[in-house]
Amino acid sequence: MDSANKVVGSTVSSSNKPNWKLKSVVIAALTLLTSSQSILIVWSKRAGKYEYSVTTANFSVEALKCALSLAALFRIWKTEGVNENNRLSTSFDEVSVYPIPAALYVIKNLLQYYIFAYVDAPAYQILKNLNIVTTGVLYRFILKRKLSQFQWAAFIFLCVGCTITQVNSTSDHVLQTSLPGWLMAVVMALLSGFAGVYTEAIIKKRPSRNINVQNFWLYIFGMLFNIIAIFIQDFDAVANNGFFHGYTFITVCMILNHALSGIAVSMVMKFADNIVKVYATSVAMLLTGIVSVFLFGFNLSLPFFLGTINVSVSVYLHYIGSSAKLQAMPAQIRTERV
Amino acid sequence: MDSANKVVGSTVSSSNKPNWKLKSVVIAALTLLTSSQSILIVWSKRAGKYEYSVTTANFSVEALKCALSLAALFRIWKTEGVNENNRLSTSFDEVSVYPIPAALYVIKNLLQYYIFAYVDAPAYQILKNLNIVTTGVLYRFILKRKLSQFQWAAFIFLCVGCTITQVNSTSDHVLQTSLPGWLMAVVMALLSGFAGVYTEAIIKKRPSRNINVQNFWLYIFGMLFNIIAIFIQDFDAVANNGFFHGYTFITVCMILNHALSGIAVSMVMKFADNIVKVYATSVAMLLTGIVSVFLFGFNLSLPFFLGTINVSVSVYLHYIGSSAKLQAMPAQIRTERV
Repeated sequence: MDSANKVVGSTVSSSNKPNWKLKSVVIAALTLLTSSQSILIVWSKRAGKYEYSVTTANFSVEALKCALSLAALFRIWKTEGVNENNRLSTSFDEVSVYPIPAALYVIKNLLQYYIFAYVDAPAYQILKNLNIVTTGVLYRFILKRKLSQFQWAAFIFLCVGCTITQVNSTSDHVLQTSLPGWLMAVVMALLSGFAGVYTEAIIKKRPSRNINVQNFWLYIFGMLFNIIAIFIQDFDAVANNGFFHGYTFITVCMILNHALSGIAVSMVMKFADNIVKVYATSVAMLLTGIVSVFLFGFNLSLPFFLGTINVSVSVYLHYIGSSAKLQAMPAQIRTERV
Repeated sequence: MDSANKVVGSTVSSSNKPNWKLKSVVIAALTLLTSSQSILIVWSKRAGKYEYSVTTANFSVEALKCALSLAALFRIWKTEGVNENNRLSTSFDEVSVYPIPAALYVIKNLLQYYIFAYVDAPAYQILKNLNIVTTGVLYRFILKRKLSQFQWAAFIFLCVGCTITQVNSTSDHVLQTSLPGWLMAVVMALLSGFAGVYTEAIIKKRPSRNINVQNFWLYIFGMLFNIIAIFIQDFDAVANNGFFHGYTFITVCMILNHALSGIAVSMVMKFADNIVKVYATSVAMLLTGIVSVFLFGFNLSLPFFLGTINVSVSVYLHYIGSSAKLQAMPAQIRTERV
């Protein structure tokens, strides 16, 4: 391809020019899929416990994503033929970085077992919002992409808003979290943010490369690392009760949902960025809360209401904050002319 | 004075050009005085009840403000001599609007007794933040002053932030407030916002008029309306126990503080505006909370912490939001040149 496509970090490829329509569809899909995710997880539990092995479900999600990417590729090969951008074969140079995000997620998931020795589940729900901050900071310093001052402010309001929605009468003890608890929460937020930012860097490094090929390789390593996780955590359960023990219709729906939202995340990384992903998943959390009012008789709390306002206005501020940068441009042009 | 000073709503008068130094001192004074206000109120109560008549304290505040304005005027007359701008005598046209804010406050204070039939005190603390919204809206539509989109967003975040700080385990019932409760809260917020905006309009209508003269007339009507309030609410107590019954050293400090912060509010209206006043009093509320941690062993709650972040970033957003409008200016200049 031409040199313009080789620019690292460029979102656009000539064959794959993202338009507003595609971008909007992908963002809407991510938002809706994520919002239904938490609801399916609640449904998939029996009496508050998982009856199936979570690691086998994670593996199934990776396998399904891999199969869907392949299916999409078969269709593309049929219409466009195999070319440099959509061929499955790869170089070591291209594929060598793909295991990194998968490995980071596995480390994060393992840490999750240990952090509960220091913080309880409701406190963890609140500390998890730190990854909004880490994503923003890593996005700025690793991808070297700039946010305007308004967008930074919007990002802080987003983080506060998401945290507020989860405030309840027992939340205050979060502030009494011990130092190891805080450290682990920060490390987990960094790992999660780093995995996201790294995935974006990988996907955008080769803008002309077909997203389904990039996904295929990402998911192959996802499968690999999840096999390791099955051996570490659930070997006995799987050996005794079988791989798919405890799977129900809801479990299958959940796996399907996770697979589709995983693909939506990749698409958002390709055609938008991590910041958009964070906003989409935050709005999804609000949608989950609102749907839960009807489905689970969840009470609309004042903090949820206030958090919703904060998140909504933050989305608006992020949007108008991007054009504020553009307003300054004519001044630069004018200076150059003088 | 020259015609430029006759522009309605102008903040600047040639004899009284507000500079950054004066503005900053006035804003800092308002913030510090307001933050110590709540602490003095807590101290002035004995076993959670006022031992003195609140209406006589309000009258004393107005009388003290009046006396301080007169004292300031005597000093000015001594150095500058009496002129058109600092003379105390006034026209019906000038003075006719001064009773309006005083009357609005009295109506609001009377309503305050009735609203407690519908909402309790903690819920009222939360609903009171509606006056941030009404002040913004009335400022825009009555004073016709524009806020940038960023400043509107900042104002919503300020309102959410102030409300969050007051969230506790019993706050959720605010959402179950009955319709009459909501209506009264909105009416009170409108009265309070309207009184503030109206005072600003009166003070800025005659920019060259000395602020101490304007204050003198405002406070004269404040005294008058508070005498009426004494007769309505505390006539028996005053007749039996005397005007100053139950006054302590703390009560006197409180009255002094109220008088000085009242004058600071007038100064902010003259040299800044209602928006700045709302920000200053919001920051004061945070300072009160932080000081209370040390003075009253008040626990730093997660909502207070989150609200503090929201309010602080909102102040920053309001500040950078004003220069965002300026960024667009070079483009206009450029267009004019072409």
